[in-house]
Amino acid sequence: MTDKPIFNRLALIGTGLIGGSIARAARLQGVARSIVATARSAATRKRVAELGFADQVVETNAAAVEGADLVIVCIPVGACGAVAKEIGPHLAPGATVSDVGSVKGSVVHDMAPHLPAGVHFIPAHPVAGTENSGPDSGFAELFVNRWCILTPPPKTDKAAVERLAGFWRALGANVETMSPEHHDLVLGITSHLPHLIAYTIVGTAEDLSEVTRSEVLKFSAGGFRDFTRIAASDPTMWRDVFLANKDAVLEMLGRFQDDLSGLTRAMQAGDGQALFDHFTRTRAIRRGIVDIGQDSAIADFGRGHAGLPAEPLPRPYAADNE
Amino acid sequence: MTDKPIFNRLALIGTGLIGGSIARAARLQGVARSIVATARSAATRKRVAELGFADQVVETNAAAVEGADLVIVCIPVGACGAVAKEIGPHLAPGATVSDVGSVKGSVVHDMAPHLPAGVHFIPAHPVAGTENSGPDSGFAELFVNRWCILTPPPKTDKAAVERLAGFWRALGANVETMSPEHHDLVLGITSHLPHLIAYTIVGTAEDLSEVTRSEVLKFSAGGFRDFTRIAASDPTMWRDVFLANKDAVLEMLGRFQDDLSGLTRAMQAGDGQALFDHFTRTRAIRRGIVDIGQDSAIADFGRGHAGLPAEPLPRPYAADNE
Repeated sequence: MTDKPIFNRLALIGTGLIGGSIARAARLQGVARSIVATARSAATRKRVAELGFADQVVETNAAAVEGADLVIVCIPVGACGAVAKEIGPHLAPGATVSDVGSVKGSVVHDMAPHLPAGVHFIPAHPVAGTENSGPDSGFAELFVNRWCILTPPPKTDKAAVERLAGFWRALGANVETMSPEHHDLVLGITSHLPHLIAYTIVGTAEDLSEVTRSEVLKFSAGGFRDFTRIAASDPTMWRDVFLANKDAVLEMLGRFQDDLSGLTRAMQAGDGQALFDHFTRTRAIRRGIVDIGQDSAIADFGRGHAGLPAEPLPRPYAADNE
Repeated sequence: MTDKPIFNRLALIGTGLIGGSIARAARLQGVARSIVATARSAATRKRVAELGFADQVVETNAAAVEGADLVIVCIPVGACGAVAKEIGPHLAPGATVSDVGSVKGSVVHDMAPHLPAGVHFIPAHPVAGTENSGPDSGFAELFVNRWCILTPPPKTDKAAVERLAGFWRALGANVETMSPEHHDLVLGITSHLPHLIAYTIVGTAEDLSEVTRSEVLKFSAGGFRDFTRIAASDPTMWRDVFLANKDAVLEMLGRFQDDLSGLTRAMQAGDGQALFDHFTRTRAIRRGIVDIGQDSAIADFGRGHAGLPAEPLPRPYAADNE
C-alpha cells in the first residue's frame, strides 16, 4: 500500500469534461485506490471504457456508489436532485458526496433532502473548463492553478471537508470555502453573466440581415471570436445554470445594464474623457488577473500565428514600380 | 535591384502595434526598398530607432512623407484629420496614402479634404491585433491569415488599389474591398460592440460591493477573464472608435439589447427549451470561425496548462483513510 491515496474508492457519476478530467488527474496523482465511473448513455459508458481513465465502468448510479468513500456527481445541475434521490439509499456510511456544479444554492436545495445522515455532503465547484464537452475532452491538468470552491453546510465535519480539500489540492487546485449564496453571486458576475452576454451577442450577429454570416466569420478577429468560444460551451449545462441561478444573474444583469447605459450616454454626448477614463480603469483588472496567474501574460491568449508566406503572393502591378 | 519591392519608400506615421508590425513584416518580405517612420513623442522615436525596424526615424510627419510612394497613417482615428492636413502639402505626386483605422467613414470624411489631387487615397483596416500597444508590441506575423479591408472611394485608380492589395497580401493578409459605410456596420458587430460590452462588464465587476476584487480575479477563469483581454486594449484608440462610429455601434447595441431581453424573459419564464435552442445555435458559429482558420481549434484558445504538482500537497487527513 502506498501512503498516497486520500480516498479508497472514487465514484464519478458523469464523465464529461469535468468528470473525465477528475478521473485522469486522480489516477495520475494516485489519490484514489480505485475509480469507478458511470454515465447515462450506453455509448458514453462504452467510450469511457475504451479511454480507460476509470478502473471500472458500471451501468447504474446505484452500482457506482456502492462501497465508494468519495462520490462526485459531475452532471448538469438540473439533474442533481434526481441523481441524489437515486443514490441516497446506496451510499456507504461515512462517504463524502460532492458535485462540480456551477450553481451551489440549487444543488444544496435539490440534493440534501435525499442524502442519509452519516454521509458528508460537501458541494464543490472547480472553476475551470474549456468550450469542449464529452469524455474525450478531459485532461489531467485542467485544475492546475485554478480554484475549487467548497460550500459545506455549517455543521459539516471539518475533517471531511479538509480531506476533500486535500483531494482537490492534489489535483493542482487552490481551495476556498464560502456559503452557497455568496458563491452564486460571485459566479454570477465572473461566469454566468459573461456567458449570457456572449450567447446573446453571437446570436445577434447571426441574425443580422445587413451583415452576412460570411462577413461575421471573416472579420471575427476584431474581438467577436473571443465571445464565440464561450458561446460554444455545453448547451445543457448552461441552460441549467441560468434556470438555477436566475436571481443572481438578473441582479448582475441589472448592474451591467446601468453601466452600459452610462457608457452609451458618454458616447452619445461625445464625452471622450469619460470613455478614456473607463477604458484605462478596466485595463488594470486584466493586469491583476495575469499577475495572480489566472491567465496568460502572452498576447492574444498565446494564440499561435502562422509564419509569413515564403514568397510574396502574385503582385500584378509590382512592375509599375520598377 | 531585386524584383520584390512593391513600393520604393514606405512612410509609417505611428509606430504602435499596427505600424510596428507593418514595418517588421514589410522588411521581412522585402516589399519596400526603404522604410521611414515617425511617432509623436521623442521617447517613442528613440525606442523605434533602438528597435531598428525602420531604416530611418524622422521627427516630423512632413519629413516622413517626403518622397514616399506609400504613406500609412497608423494612429488613433480621431487624429487622422489633423495628420492629413499636416502631410497634404508634402506628399509626392502619385503617392498612395492609406491608414489602418478601425472606422472608415470618419477617416474618409476627415482625411480626404486635405489630400491633393494626384494622390491615391485608399483607406484600409487590417482586422488584426492584440491587447498590447506601443512600438515593442508589434511582430511580423500579426497579419497572416487575417483580413485587410480596403475602402477606396469610387473613382480610385484600380492599379493603385491592386498595388496596395498586393502589399497587404505580401504581409500575409487576405484582402477585401467594400464601402466605408458597410465596413463600419460589419465592424460594429464583429469588433466595436464586443469591445463596448467587454469594457462595460469588466467595470461592473470592479464596482460590485458584494463581491471583492480579489474574488473577481481568482474566479475569473469561469469566463470573465476572456472579457478582460479585450477590455485591456488601448484606451485612446477605443475612445476614438466609439466617438467615430457612434451610429453603427448604437444600432448594433439596439439589436443586442432586444436579444438580451428575449433570453432574459426565457430565463424568467423558466423556458429551458428556448435557452437550449439558442445555445445550440451559437455553438455552430464557433465551428464556422474555426473552420475558416480565424481562430484556433485548440481548446481554450490553446492557453497553456501547467503540469500537476509532482507530489500531492500536504494532506493532513490522509492517514484517516489508511
